[in-house]
Amino acid sequence: MKEEIAALMEQVRSKNPLVHHITNTVTINDCANVTLAIGGSPVMADSSEEAASMVKLAQALVINMGTLTESTFTAMVRASQEANRRQIPVVLDPVGVGATSFRNEKAKEFLQTVDPQIVRGNASEISSLIGEEAQTRGVDAGNVNEDLALLASRAAKLLKAVVVVSGPVDYISDGNRTIGIQNGHPILTKVTGTGCMATSLIGNFAGATNDYFYAAIAGISVMGIAGELAYRSFGESPVGTGSFHIRLIDEVSFMNSRTWQKEVNFVEV
Amino acid sequence: MKEEIAALMEQVRSKNPLVHHITNTVTINDCANVTLAIGGSPVMADSSEEAASMVKLAQALVINMGTLTESTFTAMVRASQEANRRQIPVVLDPVGVGATSFRNEKAKEFLQTVDPQIVRGNASEISSLIGEEAQTRGVDAGNVNEDLALLASRAAKLLKAVVVVSGPVDYISDGNRTIGIQNGHPILTKVTGTGCMATSLIGNFAGATNDYFYAAIAGISVMGIAGELAYRSFGESPVGTGSFHIRLIDEVSFMNSRTWQKEVNFVEV
Amino acid sequence: MKEEIAALMEQVRSKNPLVHHITNTVTINDCANVTLAIGGSPVMADSSEEAASMVKLAQALVINMGTLTESTFTAMVRASQEANRRQIPVVLDPVGVGATSFRNEKAKEFLQTVDPQIVRGNASEISSLIGEEAQTRGVDAGNVNEDLALLASRAAKLLKAVVVVSGPVDYISDGNRTIGIQNGHPILTKVTGTGCMATSLIGNFAGATNDYFYAAIAGISVMGIAGELAYRSFGESPVGTGSFHIRLIDEVSFMNSRTWQKEVNFVEV
Repeated sequence: MKEEIAALMEQVRSKNPLVHHITNTVTINDCANVTLAIGGSPVMADSSEEAASMVKLAQALVINMGTLTESTFTAMVRASQEANRRQIPVVLDPVGVGATSFRNEKAKEFLQTVDPQIVRGNASEISSLIGEEAQTRGVDAGNVNEDLALLASRAAKLLKAVVVVSGPVDYISDGNRTIGIQNGHPILTKVTGTGCMATSLIGNFAGATNDYFYAAIAGISVMGIAGELAYRSFGESPVGTGSFHIRLIDEVSFMNSRTWQKEVNFVEV
Repeated sequence: MKEEIAALMEQVRSKNPLVHHITNTVTINDCANVTLAIGGSPVMADSSEEAASMVKLAQALVINMGTLTESTFTAMVRASQEANRRQIPVVLDPVGVGATSFRNEKAKEFLQTVDPQIVRGNASEISSLIGEEAQTRGVDAGNVNEDLALLASRAAKLLKAVVVVSGPVDYISDGNRTIGIQNGHPILTKVTGTGCMATSLIGNFAGATNDYFYAAIAGISVMGIAGELAYRSFGESPVGTGSFHIRLIDEVSFMNSRTWQKEVNFVEV
Repeated sequence: MKEEIAALMEQVRSKNPLVHHITNTVTINDCANVTLAIGGSPVMADSSEEAASMVKLAQALVINMGTLTESTFTAMVRASQEANRRQIPVVLDPVGVGATSFRNEKAKEFLQTVDPQIVRGNASEISSLIGEEAQTRGVDAGNVNEDLALLASRAAKLLKAVVVVSGPVDYISDGNRTIGIQNGHPILTKVTGTGCMATSLIGNFAGATNDYFYAAIAGISVMGIAGELAYRSFGESPVGTGSFHIRLIDEVSFMNSRTWQKEVNFVEV
């Protein structure tokens, strides 16, 4: 498996997938830049009038609910339905689901009309998405958390999608197989949009392979590895969050199969 | 007073306030990142459908009128009214008020329906907000400007809020006390959003203390000090505005009570 | 001609034009920062209610269709009509025109109601804008492409505007004269918004001179030169796209007539 995923690092650069995003206004620039950094091409058109036309040109669609409004929601549904019809993979990031009833209802409505192929969120978002009480207590950095691995697997079966539950360990499940990835650094939580960027990376890989399980592992691990390498690049110097943000994108732009294979840290689930 | 404000540097990190922003699309990423850098957690939901629900989870609300539209205005009013009901502090940044009648009317309408606890703007914006002719002539970098100190105090009384009039010297008044802070560097005006970020910082401190006068002083002085330290960090090298922008956020992420106390520069008013 | 254009580097800093942008949400922050970096002042108000009032205060208007919606389109038309009435130059960036019928129709409608003074796009966008089949094959980095030079000239005549066709060589034409500029670096395509920023730079120069042909040459060449200098500044170190992005803005902020004259590379057309 590691060989095939490693090979995706070059595959995404040679295929140069067009990745259509309908995303939030906070991290939209970072999502576009991380797409370019890993080898894809971003298009961020989010008007409901053209979302369905634009997605026809794309190899993957990323739906990010960070700053959801009625009008972007309409664009999300139209683009995703068109993507479903054309078997273009839809990657969903249900940002903040669980926080307000507006988000909960919109996420529910989305899942009733659209089939995402990959869903990435933290434990609380994924729990809310499948109508469970979030059980984020007991999350222990660096150790496998049985509850979260099971959450990923349960959500994957329910949603008939590959599910990523992000955290100190990331759990990726397609319902049958569940993988834990332990890359990253706590400072990633001090820069806005590292979750959104991880989802964008997943979208890029999903645009370059039909194996969405591998695409999800590739995307989430690249963000974690880039975070580690960016942090390490400061050596003994203090790590400011502004500079870390920039070096994080640098490290994504430097990523290749050799670095990935050397740095990726699978954990037994 | 200096001791109490210095202590806020650690207090905001330990309390980790959730700071809800309804803000502009230009500097929204910077506002989120500066919130993380000082120790808060940002949420930037700006849809009118959920703004009032989202603010219930927050410890402070930042309203920034930079790219005001009818629909974000509705979100601003709903969120602010809910914040007022729950005694969650509302921090207003009336960006560009005075420039168009649309902005003037919206700002007026806002103040008629909502009570902000803190307002930050430049002399022209604060003057316009209270219906005065802006008198920005005679502003002299590095010297106390009596007119501006009085403007802050007058606006504070009228608005029943803590008011910050930003400039080479920042004046902070609660109507009784007026403080001048002389930190910062002219290059701060060459990066977009340094005013917005200052307002976000104030929002973070207001989410960590009930003393909004101190919160305003803390927020505005942190931006000025971070600007000085960022500039100084270049030593003899030329200071490009792109790199300065990044180091500015670095310096906010490094801020602590010791640095603050060493660097803050109060001036007699 | 080189002398006059070189002089614009200082002229834009001394005139400090207010450049009103109605632009996309992806690169809006970069457009504002690059405006400050070259010596202008950005205002990014995009609400249809105030766009026409805001533009009255400006020396140039930049219209960028990157994330076009019905509501921003209304703002674009209102602001541009007011700009036309007041002889404030309108600089159009028809991002993505050719990709969807929504964009094609909106661009057509825009050109039927408004006269832009300068239009910048890649070969595909400019072709679509004038209703031609895009002929982007045969584009050869580093060599003059007769087809593209003629495209610029033909578009300029049809649109009665200065037209910039961007690519490895940029072609600028007013219909009579056509100039080729060969500055830049391929890594510029790995950062989102370098096209948008070039358009913003053109807007800044158009706000500082009545010679829009020179303004267009100045803006597009500054972006190319800044790209080269930013790349060169890494020396032997690997060039990450995050850091390159920041240094690009640094180099714009360092630009002056001496650097420009030394680095600009005109090619015979």
